[in-house]
Amino acid sequence: MPLLDSLTEALRVLPGVGPKSAQRMAYHLLQRDREGAARLAGTLAAALAEVRHCARCNNFTEAEVCERCLSQQRDASQLCVVEMPSDLMVMESTLAYRGLYYVLMGKLSPLDGIGPRELKFDKLVERATDGMVQEVILATNFTNEGEATAHYLGEMLRARGLRVSRIARGVPVGGELEHTDLGTVAQAFVERRGW
Amino acid sequence: MPLLDSLTEALRVLPGVGPKSAQRMAYHLLQRDREGAARLAGTLAAALAEVRHCARCNNFTEAEVCERCLSQQRDASQLCVVEMPSDLMVMESTLAYRGLYYVLMGKLSPLDGIGPRELKFDKLVERATDGMVQEVILATNFTNEGEATAHYLGEMLRARGLRVSRIARGVPVGGELEHTDLGTVAQAFVERRGW
Repeated sequence: MPLLDSLTEALRVLPGVGPKSAQRMAYHLLQRDREGAARLAGTLAAALAEVRHCARCNNFTEAEVCERCLSQQRDASQLCVVEMPSDLMVMESTLAYRGLYYVLMGKLSPLDGIGPRELKFDKLVERATDGMVQEVILATNFTNEGEATAHYLGEMLRARGLRVSRIARGVPVGGELEHTDLGTVAQAFVERRGW
Repeated sequence: MPLLDSLTEALRVLPGVGPKSAQRMAYHLLQRDREGAARLAGTLAAALAEVRHCARCNNFTEAEVCERCLSQQRDASQLCVVEMPSDLMVMESTLAYRGLYYVLMGKLSPLDGIGPRELKFDKLVERATDGMVQEVILATNFTNEGEATAHYLGEMLRARGLRVSRIARGVPVGGELEHTDLGTVAQAFVERRGW
């Protein structure tokens, strides 16, 4: 197969990229921005080699344990569980939370074959039962899948004697943290309730 | 800058990819499809190293001269000028043309700084005046920019004594006047031919 066709096909691993836009991207990279294309190839290879998951919070990092988890400034008695790194960043920018995080890197999604094992719930349990954590705050999205994830995690963590809370439903039903204004997210955090 | 952020930024060289979707793509590549991501990095690097422009038709190829230009089965007296490789493929799939091609790899677009020099019109002139070509068929799109490109090329090639034609514009085959835009119907009327 010609390399141009291989490249078009390889670009289709990107989410939301169909055959037409993959072709347009391949032309663009080879014709209009070879420098950017070379940077993309190099950065992607480097990221694949270097980026891993933090041993404590599961977020992306290039170290064994990420900076946030190592910080002495955070309240180690609170652990906030989010779906994705982008959700963590939304929580951080509200400035309403000073505890630590656990990033699931997804949500329960049986149709896509993503269950408790794929999301490594055991790693979260181990993290939450370190003796320091006193409250686990579930901040998964208020979508069906996010809610199901929160329910499952709530039961699992309460069974281990942990106090569990859920951010308040100030976030619109069916809405996602990433697309919610900061004030609403902050309010939902303040109004979290027993779960 | 963390590699994850570098990757998100590098992905923005792709046309139509903004900050949000670049982030989603970076997560997807690192979290859900590392194999596909490695293939993409490798193929992109290989394509950058190997894919060049055919010395005759300017299309992408991995050889000095592409297979189509070397073929003995094509009519070397006709040269069809298209904007992009995808346009060439559309022409080929009509099975209506047996001549050769020249691929501009773009169109005149002064606002984007793309002029006759960027599109290497001199390479086209050299190709068209090889002594074999008797007719140059302009098959650029019927957009403003495609039309401007055709006008410019037409004047330039006619000045070199070449016969120049333009693919026809009109009501689509199977199309109904009622469902065709007025500009097209008006143009089809103006360009009516003997019957």
